[in-house]
Amino acid sequence: MPVRFDIVSQGEELLSGQNVDTNAPWISGELQSLGLVPGRVSVVGDELASIRAVLAEAAQRASVVVCTGGLGPTTDDLTRDAAAAAFGVPLEESAEGLAQIEERYRSRLRPMPPTNRVQALLPRGAELLENRLGTAPGFAWDTGSCMLFFLPGVPFEMRPMVIQQVLPRVRARFSLEPRRTVLLRCVSLAESVAGERMAGFERPGVTVGYRASFPEVQVKLHVDAGLDGDALAEEAIARLGRQHVFGVGTGPLASVVGDMLRERGETVSTAESCTAGRISAELTAAAGASDFFLGGAVVYANAAKTDFCGVPAELIAREGAVSESVARALAEGVRARMGSTWGLGVTGIAGPGGGSEEKPVGTLHIACAGPGGVDHTALRLPYDRLRNLSVSVALTLDLLRQAMLKRT
Amino acid sequence: MPVRFDIVSQGEELLSGQNVDTNAPWISGELQSLGLVPGRVSVVGDELASIRAVLAEAAQRASVVVCTGGLGPTTDDLTRDAAAAAFGVPLEESAEGLAQIEERYRSRLRPMPPTNRVQALLPRGAELLENRLGTAPGFAWDTGSCMLFFLPGVPFEMRPMVIQQVLPRVRARFSLEPRRTVLLRCVSLAESVAGERMAGFERPGVTVGYRASFPEVQVKLHVDAGLDGDALAEEAIARLGRQHVFGVGTGPLASVVGDMLRERGETVSTAESCTAGRISAELTAAAGASDFFLGGAVVYANAAKTDFCGVPAELIAREGAVSESVARALAEGVRARMGSTWGLGVTGIAGPGGGSEEKPVGTLHIACAGPGGVDHTALRLPYDRLRNLSVSVALTLDLLRQAMLKRT
Repeated sequence: MPVRFDIVSQGEELLSGQNVDTNAPWISGELQSLGLVPGRVSVVGDELASIRAVLAEAAQRASVVVCTGGLGPTTDDLTRDAAAAAFGVPLEESAEGLAQIEERYRSRLRPMPPTNRVQALLPRGAELLENRLGTAPGFAWDTGSCMLFFLPGVPFEMRPMVIQQVLPRVRARFSLEPRRTVLLRCVSLAESVAGERMAGFERPGVTVGYRASFPEVQVKLHVDAGLDGDALAEEAIARLGRQHVFGVGTGPLASVVGDMLRERGETVSTAESCTAGRISAELTAAAGASDFFLGGAVVYANAAKTDFCGVPAELIAREGAVSESVARALAEGVRARMGSTWGLGVTGIAGPGGGSEEKPVGTLHIACAGPGGVDHTALRLPYDRLRNLSVSVALTLDLLRQAMLKRT
Repeated sequence: MPVRFDIVSQGEELLSGQNVDTNAPWISGELQSLGLVPGRVSVVGDELASIRAVLAEAAQRASVVVCTGGLGPTTDDLTRDAAAAAFGVPLEESAEGLAQIEERYRSRLRPMPPTNRVQALLPRGAELLENRLGTAPGFAWDTGSCMLFFLPGVPFEMRPMVIQQVLPRVRARFSLEPRRTVLLRCVSLAESVAGERMAGFERPGVTVGYRASFPEVQVKLHVDAGLDGDALAEEAIARLGRQHVFGVGTGPLASVVGDMLRERGETVSTAESCTAGRISAELTAAAGASDFFLGGAVVYANAAKTDFCGVPAELIAREGAVSESVARALAEGVRARMGSTWGLGVTGIAGPGGGSEEKPVGTLHIACAGPGGVDHTALRLPYDRLRNLSVSVALTLDLLRQAMLKRT
């Protein structure tokens, strides 16, 4: 019998659509990693009757319920009251909870406002869950057939409480075989193609999930304890195509490329036309990028291509700014100018305007100049402007990754 | 009596947390703009009994229910079946629906795969809702006390169906006073400060909502028909501080700055150290940026500052790369190099490493060089790396905006 869980996200700003609920997807992933099965996610606003009803219903349906939000000190924070009403018990002040709230304020050298005292109220019989990063303690309630957890809605406070307090309690209650998740990160591979290549891969104890985080595709192998996750990963990589899998359990492509450069003691510089700084931004997203990234030129106007990267004006006039020759000249020019191991050049027509019959919207030329010469790729991208740009960034970074692999 | 609505989002990938549900917030906003009140949002997976139960419950609770997802052609698309079961009617093929699906394929010059025929099945008595952008038609069902709408989960297909088919039907059924929403976009203003300044602004027929989209804060005035939204907006702008409100109903800061430049027939170029291309990326997010953006330098290494922007090496040695003088020299240097009306220079320590006692993490110098000289601002930012960078981008763009306002 699968152990099912429900999630309740409480907050008028979620219900009204002002904020997107990111807590539920995160909590769902954590509970699934223990082997639990998701039942339903419910979002309710700041209305006592609604919260009470959804809690009672969820406790009927599921064996585990995690509810976030509504534990603040203001009058629209009603989850405590709704929980007490749903369980048919009164609220009582928790001395331990009050001490924790007072301690939070003491550590910030501020007096506790009297309004915050209400946050120490718990349904009688509930178990206090400490919140080390905020003033709203959480609590747990057990109906016998269902464990309910009440946590603050602030992700930064909620997440460590799930990991340190919720997951261990759930694990202790149910005999769950923890599953291992192997994350394969792919680029230059459509989600539908990944799905086709992985068709039939599932077997007892192994399920496969997909997540498109454009232009990256993540393939997740959920593997029961006792099975060889590494061997399964190898088998999946062979199916997906080794060149498409840029990382197993790693960070995003730019960080994989950055780590490769750092390990090799090499550097890169960029000359970006259409992508206009997006490659340099990604390369510097993680701290420490100055180890391998020297700088770059954003060469939107043709004069900038000539001035920053020494692309001859007559070459641009003859071949056009979006051309193989200009992409190569940008890569070589910025590499020479910066004295870096590698130089990347990108020029293209992201759209929606600017296309011609010969060079339609989506035309892209990328080049990577390095110790062994210049690699070049030409593509025709089919997406809208921002997707064309983000796939251009990924393909250029991957061109550098492939070039480094060739020179290992 | 308020007219309440429920939203049901169907899809295993939403329930499992692989994808974040953006449909429900969007639909919620649209229905609220008609004057309806949100009741509950439920997310369910690909399980017939779950979908059936949530539909029956929602129809009990609400006067309007919008359900998205589960209308595709594969065996895990179960919303049609669940709806028929919930309403106690069989599924029947809709000749009109089938003709629409066949027409979609004809217009794409492809034959209709036999599996897609199932998408023409509707609960007997349901009203067909045409999907002009995809193969999954929607349908409407009326229980007498509740109107239910079933739409595809693909946002791009679903949104026009809501606007063209759902909202008019809801408006015709209920006598609703439409409310106007005035969107004030603010920068350099914390959400809590915005909230304090707007305290007491609400009055009969006027509610205020906030949305922090870091580092921007949006203040929304929801105004009943018959009240003067423009006058209320003026009053709110005066409270929030005129210099903080960069747009009323506009796009993001970079697009406002771009539009100002375009109208003035002026140009800008950028010299970015810590932000490493993020400013040029934002300025080029909308098409047509070549009207006003010439190019820029990403000057991560000190040699790049000297080489691309002519910042004297001895100035960097004397004052440090993160200093007022270097920010000014970057702005002036790139402006002279590119021949643009304005030049932006940014240098800072985004963290988490790289700080010193004299120049701690978060130190930021930004400069804007223009026809009237150079404006400079120094700040100490308190956030993590990526937030420090995104607020640096916004503050630099806002420095340019303020400089342009001074020279109107």
